[in-house]
Amino acid sequence: MPRSVQITKEKILTAALDVLIREGYSAVSIKSIARELNCSTQPIAWQFGNMDNMREALTMEAVTYANKKMMPTSTDCIEAFWQIGYGYINLAFNTPNLFRFVYMGESKNYCRGGFNSFLTDKGNAVLIDKLYPYLNISREQAEMLFQRMIVYTHGMVSLVVAGVLNCTKEQVYSIVKDFGSDLLSLTDTALDIGTVMSNITEV
Amino acid sequence: MPRSVQITKEKILTAALDVLIREGYSAVSIKSIARELNCSTQPIAWQFGNMDNMREALTMEAVTYANKKMMPTSTDCIEAFWQIGYGYINLAFNTPNLFRFVYMGESKNYCRGGFNSFLTDKGNAVLIDKLYPYLNISREQAEMLFQRMIVYTHGMVSLVVAGVLNCTKEQVYSIVKDFGSDLLSLTDTALDIGTVMSNITEV
Repeated sequence: MPRSVQITKEKILTAALDVLIREGYSAVSIKSIARELNCSTQPIAWQFGNMDNMREALTMEAVTYANKKMMPTSTDCIEAFWQIGYGYINLAFNTPNLFRFVYMGESKNYCRGGFNSFLTDKGNAVLIDKLYPYLNISREQAEMLFQRMIVYTHGMVSLVVAGVLNCTKEQVYSIVKDFGSDLLSLTDTALDIGTVMSNITEV
Repeated sequence: MPRSVQITKEKILTAALDVLIREGYSAVSIKSIARELNCSTQPIAWQFGNMDNMREALTMEAVTYANKKMMPTSTDCIEAFWQIGYGYINLAFNTPNLFRFVYMGESKNYCRGGFNSFLTDKGNAVLIDKLYPYLNISREQAEMLFQRMIVYTHGMVSLVVAGVLNCTKEQVYSIVKDFGSDLLSLTDTALDIGTVMSNITEV
């Protein structure tokens, strides 16, 4: 069995993701992946052909990694909602190179679609379905809340990752929470917002 | 008088900005600027020494360009506020390469400071000073409004520039306006928000 057969696509992508997270996308090349795997460049070139194909596959790999990191575990829908935001903030602070690649345009292969694509995404749709009856608001209000939280949180952390703003992770948590609490007060929920917010534990 | 003297720093930066806007930062090099100016690389290398110095100077040039584009002209403070947001959206759609360079981290030389730096910026501080008495709200509420508008607008347009979201300029105008109108309703302004918003003309 030739050596190249043992270097699976999966192994190559894991190594490429490691290089991306550690050194940034500009450091990802067939050469650097080969070094990471301690093999020749041949099996990588053979599996992916060129860097365009590699970038496309790496985008999928990076998105899967990011989605896993943001996957909410709580059965409480408010807490689950916060876990996504919290996960997104952590992703930006802990793995800025991956964040830049997927969410700040370096990959050039990650397009979610139109503005409503945040809502039709399967996991998000399920969460919105739980949120609006819980808060006793319309689905439209819950969707608006959801979209605005995502866009605002992205605005905050992408400015930090870009180096335009200096903020600590703790500052961003607190800024985003205050924003969420104010957005809740824009809905006609009868729940006490202070109580809702105080139930959120840092995960 | 040797030719190199005629190639001023100013001329070089104007040419570099043209290349940046047209082709993106990755295309900016001493060679491409020389081609743009129809001169040899010598005067450019002589003026800037290396690409790090050039990038730093180009950042200043690009920020000045961006600030000019966003400079409000209205004497009405609500309209002036909208002109900044409108200018920011247009900047992203019309000159995405410049936007990526300055606001999405490519430059690596543009840091505004902490989260409150949006408020201490001279032009912004003057505008906030007009906004809060006009709306009859506290300065703190006006600052919050200001910060959230900037962060949210940045979130929207940077997702579009990154290719993550597909939105037209008109969609973004409308989404940002709705957001602003809702943020206004969070303050205790006694003004009729519908009237305030309807006074905004597209500039």
